[in-house]
Amino acid sequence: MSARAALIDALRACVGAAQVLTEGDLAAWELDWRRRWRGKALAVVRPASTQEVAAVVRACAAHGVSIVPQGGNTGLVGGGVPDASGTQVVLSMTRLARIREIDRANLTLTAEAGCVLQAVQQAAAAAGLLLPLSLAAEGSCTIGGNLATNAGGTQVLRYGNARALCLGLEVVTAAGEVWHGLTGLRKDNTGYDLRDLFVGSEGTLGVITAATLALHPQPAATMTAMARCATLEACVGLLGMAQQRLGPGLSGFEAMNGFSLALVARHFPQQRQPLAPGPWTVLLELSDAEGPAHARERFEALLGDALEGGLIDDAAVAESLAQSQAMWHLRESIPLAQAEEGLNIKHDIALPVSRIAAFCESTGAALARAVPGMRLVNFGHLGDGNLHYNVQAPEGVDVAAFLQQREHEVNRIVHDAVAAHGGSISAEHGIGTLKRDELPRYKDPTALALMRAVKRSLDPRGLLNPGRVL
Amino acid sequence: MSARAALIDALRACVGAAQVLTEGDLAAWELDWRRRWRGKALAVVRPASTQEVAAVVRACAAHGVSIVPQGGNTGLVGGGVPDASGTQVVLSMTRLARIREIDRANLTLTAEAGCVLQAVQQAAAAAGLLLPLSLAAEGSCTIGGNLATNAGGTQVLRYGNARALCLGLEVVTAAGEVWHGLTGLRKDNTGYDLRDLFVGSEGTLGVITAATLALHPQPAATMTAMARCATLEACVGLLGMAQQRLGPGLSGFEAMNGFSLALVARHFPQQRQPLAPGPWTVLLELSDAEGPAHARERFEALLGDALEGGLIDDAAVAESLAQSQAMWHLRESIPLAQAEEGLNIKHDIALPVSRIAAFCESTGAALARAVPGMRLVNFGHLGDGNLHYNVQAPEGVDVAAFLQQREHEVNRIVHDAVAAHGGSISAEHGIGTLKRDELPRYKDPTALALMRAVKRSLDPRGLLNPGRVL
Repeated sequence: MSARAALIDALRACVGAAQVLTEGDLAAWELDWRRRWRGKALAVVRPASTQEVAAVVRACAAHGVSIVPQGGNTGLVGGGVPDASGTQVVLSMTRLARIREIDRANLTLTAEAGCVLQAVQQAAAAAGLLLPLSLAAEGSCTIGGNLATNAGGTQVLRYGNARALCLGLEVVTAAGEVWHGLTGLRKDNTGYDLRDLFVGSEGTLGVITAATLALHPQPAATMTAMARCATLEACVGLLGMAQQRLGPGLSGFEAMNGFSLALVARHFPQQRQPLAPGPWTVLLELSDAEGPAHARERFEALLGDALEGGLIDDAAVAESLAQSQAMWHLRESIPLAQAEEGLNIKHDIALPVSRIAAFCESTGAALARAVPGMRLVNFGHLGDGNLHYNVQAPEGVDVAAFLQQREHEVNRIVHDAVAAHGGSISAEHGIGTLKRDELPRYKDPTALALMRAVKRSLDPRGLLNPGRVL
Repeated sequence: MSARAALIDALRACVGAAQVLTEGDLAAWELDWRRRWRGKALAVVRPASTQEVAAVVRACAAHGVSIVPQGGNTGLVGGGVPDASGTQVVLSMTRLARIREIDRANLTLTAEAGCVLQAVQQAAAAAGLLLPLSLAAEGSCTIGGNLATNAGGTQVLRYGNARALCLGLEVVTAAGEVWHGLTGLRKDNTGYDLRDLFVGSEGTLGVITAATLALHPQPAATMTAMARCATLEACVGLLGMAQQRLGPGLSGFEAMNGFSLALVARHFPQQRQPLAPGPWTVLLELSDAEGPAHARERFEALLGDALEGGLIDDAAVAESLAQSQAMWHLRESIPLAQAEEGLNIKHDIALPVSRIAAFCESTGAALARAVPGMRLVNFGHLGDGNLHYNVQAPEGVDVAAFLQQREHEVNRIVHDAVAAHGGSISAEHGIGTLKRDELPRYKDPTALALMRAVKRSLDPRGLLNPGRVL
């Protein structure tokens, strides 16, 4: 029997023959969501419990075969699909999908890694509580993937990213042992912070099998507003004013440049845009503990003063839940509209808020010199300093050729500028395969050496998602 | 020249002869704040810059001598003083005391590790902003020590512990290299979370030399109230109601049992207690973005409904800043009052909020059986599930003998019960020397093995604060 056949037998013994897939169309696991990386798996294995995950990891370790953990396969950096070698086992976590416990008095929920984010949101809501993690892929991404990549999303400004919502973890180590760390504690200073080490490690240090998440009370009202700004400096000024005036009530602050909304208008003309086009449009969200009337009053006072002070030149407060949702829909249509326009060169960058305007001014000019006619789709979570700073080919240019010829150069211009302004080349998407080779250029060399030491200590044989991150 | 003399020469070359202390009374560095551990240092070294810290670490490594990093020497678990061997170098960080930068638009402040917490609070306040980390030792503890121990304090409920306020770090590694990680970013997914690994590692993985901290807008009003509850269940019920009604406005929720406040009344009779004695008294703090009138209105509505619903039987809202401060002073006098009463057996425990009442009922009964007449000073940050659950000797008993004879047994009863309820034996004080030998009984064995692997990978020769935590 070949080594491969012996491993497949061993995997079948772990999870049952029906859950070890080796034949037929495995594109759902082998091809990433952006259709950018197409790999070939030795097998796709679908365990249904933590013990089965541990058994699979031990079987692969015994055969010296590497493992690619996968959640909903919605990642954007090629971190969750196998390479093309046909030698890697995809460990699909989607059958670990139980909500294990909701503790209302403790404001916690314990979910298995394969739970779809939306299902976890709904379980929290059914208990009258809020899981404030929300992102475009929430209908298919899994909570395990969210934690493995430290997902961000639209409510980070108030509630933090996935890491901030995670109190405890259950993890299968590279040796196939189980760390039972599902505590629902807000304070626990009994040793090193293993939880945050696994969170964001993109499946390279261990396999998250379950998590205890912090929930929050549902706000009495959630309301959105839009405002138009003449400059990015004015957007940043409005952010500071909103933080001061609304405090933690400010739960979202998104900025969109004129071209972003023009693309939405072009490709989705049926969507009503509440404000006339302008250089910058901001979407604000207020989560209020008192109710809709109080929320409206606070929004109107803030925006009235911003108008008077010249920070904005127009504004609209949503009059209903439907209008709030329509404002968010406009924002969320930007990624779809740019896809309709054709592929572009994407960046997921973070900067100190104080540097954003200067960064955009100088980098926009440098890009315009290097790529005359390029069009910037510049939008994102301004409140977190996180921009999706995407470079669209000049009008009429062949998009595939543009990407192939210019992507490296454009990345270099943008990411060098990010580094010069003290920023990050990956704010919320991670490193994966996409940015692995770029990381050594931008990461502090001591930090890289520490990361490598940690990787060697927790996965000495390099079997967990090799070639990713490091 | 002896090896010791050669090292001292090398240390003098790093920081200047005046900053290498080997003679005279070194009790300020060798004796801990609780006067429980008295060590003997080979030398106390006082570098003034990150480069000097790195040079000292390299010199010690070259001589195979271990290092005990020390901030304000206010720790409670014996983690910052040398052992009695006379072979360890104390690395005192208090001369690294510069505020390097305040970025108001980015809401960040960068401080060197030796800055006293209160000085950092004041620097933030001078810029019109808030550093929401506050604890009893703030007048002498350092921000580096706060981060190395992941300090908690009175505002964790809303703002999180020290970890949650730290965005970036500068660290000297065990090899004497510098990790330049002082970013002011809210989002950065470029690899493993080294920051949170060093935070809370109690000087055993590296030496924090500076940190970039997240600041917050100052609330328009901060107001306190006190309420009296018949049971601990009622306190927990009031907490849930306050979280629902006040949302993130609720910035403090402290509970105190009747005996805690009786001790304050006995030893500090001049302090006015706003409410008549009862089984439990709660201190609530509201941080409001709108102003004092709004804060009072919300407090009165909440407490009125709690009174009507039978959760509380009396309440008082502070009428002035002075009254707010007096309420906090009452709470902060409990540790002093218990010290006046005589040493006691201290516990710093965390539990899921939902388990606190059951824990206290069964553990209190078990202690009363084991130690008839013992008196519980039970108080703490109920909103975080964190109790300082201290066992005072029976009235009239010799305190020193009581501690010597009963401490181990009492710790065992309390900590076993904590473990049975899914809690932590160290919520905010850390492990240090005090709880190192207890840790293996309560920590998941896989977690301990992972911690040891991390320690070996980042400090392979075991020279950083050996014998602490692990």
